[in-house]
Formats: sequence, structure tokens, C-alpha cells
Amino acid sequence: MDLIFRILALIGTLGSAFAMATTNQRLPFFNSFTQFKARYRDIPAFIFFVAANGIVSAYLLLSLAFSFFHILRSSAQRTRLILMFFDMAMLVILTAGASAAAAIVYLAHIGNPNWNWFSFCRQFHSFCERSSGSLIGSFVAVIFMTLVIIVAGVALARRP
Amino acid sequence: MDLIFRILALIGTLGSAFAMATTNQRLPFFNSFTQFKARYRDIPAFIFFVAANGIVSAYLLLSLAFSFFHILRSSAQRTRLILMFFDMAMLVILTAGASAAAAIVYLAHIGNPNWNWFSFCRQFHSFCERSSGSLIGSFVAVIFMTLVIIVAGVALARRP
Repeated sequence: MDLIFRILALIGTLGSAFAMATTNQRLPFFNSFTQFKARYRDIPAFIFFVAANGIVSAYLLLSLAFSFFHILRSSAQRTRLILMFFDMAMLVILTAGASAAAAIVYLAHIGNPNWNWFSFCRQFHSFCERSSGSLIGSFVAVIFMTLVIIVAGVALARRP
Repeated sequence: MDLIFRILALIGTLGSAFAMATTNQRLPFFNSFTQFKARYRDIPAFIFFVAANGIVSAYLLLSLAFSFFHILRSSAQRTRLILMFFDMAMLVILTAGASAAAAIVYLAHIGNPNWNWFSFCRQFHSFCERSSGSLIGSFVAVIFMTLVIIVAGVALARRP
């Protein structure tokens, strides 16, 4: 169970990181003053999102080895607890990245007329679609990380 | 330790929630077309921030009772583990709220010239200061919640 959830979470974070990092769009017209180009690097929250997904992907890849180890030796309580703490830290990083990016994506879709921020998606339609889509992978990964931690907690609680 | 950290985290979240919820600013001039007023309700990420801080405050207040119970009966392993899971869930909610609000506050300070989003703080200086300040309480609470969970984990691990 633990292994399967970890692999699913890994797919989610890797997918998100790649989808966001490769998202850019150039509009078919330009002038000498402004470049009509959108990249994820323009928005610090998206950079953080890509970094968070990358870190969590790398961690999940490493933790697969520990997960195998726990399948073989189910009595290893101490390492299980340590792994659970790292899982938790990664869950917090991933949640922070995903929600910061979600706040920006929401603004990009709706805009904010009170503050004179215009909806960005009217111009950069495909960029918006891509970046919104890449959030899904990240939130799916959040769900699977939560399941990983719950499974670990139940395994810890079952043994006295 | 557990009790002290909980109380400190509670002060942080309560402070944040009140600071953000009472933040509004009306500019000393107005015309018939636009209202020069800034409220936290204009930004969905800030509403989520206030809600997250409120929920976590309420939870922390309730959990103080459990914390007392654990001081009196230090052998209660099962409830300690359950409490740890709820702590974790609250930590994730608080992190999500704080980072979404931080992404917006950053945008409000710096703006984004590529996307034609102008720095909002030039007009609403005091609103900006308040909302940035209220983030501090929330991030301090995140740190103390993490400490609470680490203390609980160490207490769980020490007993075989």
C-alpha cells in the first residue's frame, strides 16, 4: 500500500513539475515595446511551485528504497517514524507550493477589478490551461502523501 | 512543552485572523465610478487565510484540553497518536492558507509588469502593511505547530 501510494504521488509531482516548467506561450503578434510572451518564470509563486514539486519528487524517489525495506522488515519501528516525519515535512512543502500557485492561477483566471488587475487568461489562453492543469497533479500528490502518512500511522499504532 | 507551544501557536493564529479580518482602508478621495477602498474580502486567498486561521485557532483551543490530559496521564499512547494526526491536518491547512496569502501579498508589493498587474501597495500603503504583518503571526504559528508535532513524535518514540 505504502509503496503504491508513494509511486502514485511521485507520478503526480513529476507530472506537475514538468507541465509547469515547460509551459510558455508566445502570442503571434509583438511590438518593439512589450514582448507578448508568458513563462512560468515571470511569477515567483510558479518558480516555488516547480521547486517544491522537484524536491518532493526527488524525496519520493529516495523513499521508495525505504518503503521496500519496510516491506521486508516490518518490525523496524524507529525508521518508520523517522520516515513519517520526513513525509510530513514534504507534505507541508508540497501544500505550500500548490496553494501559492493556486492563488495565482485563480487571480489569472478571474482577475481582480477592484485592484485593477486584469484577467490574464483572456490573452494567454493556452498558458492558463497548462498551468491550471499542472496544479491537478500536485493536489493529487498531496492526497496520496496524506494517505501514505495515515497508512504509516496505522502501522505504527497497530504494534504496541 | 506541548502545552506552551500550543498556546504560542494559538496566539499567532488568533492574532493573524484578527489582523487580517480588521484590515481595510479607504483612500481620502473617491469618484463616482470606482470606490477607493481595500478590504480583505476582495481577495479570495485572504478569505481562505482568515478561515484557515480561524479553524486552526478553534482546534488549538480544543486541543489544550487534550494536552492537559496528556500531562496528567503520560501513558495514553492512542489518543496522543490521534491528536498528532489532527495536528498534522491543521498544520497543512495553516500552511496552505499562509502560503496562498503570501503569494498575493508578494504580488501586491512587487506587482507583475509582464502581466500588466500594477503594484497595489503604492496606493494602499497601510492596507499592505497590515496584511503583510498578519502573515508573520501565521508563519510563527506554523513553526510552533511543527514543534508540537515533533515533541509528540519524540514522546511516542521514547516509549517502546
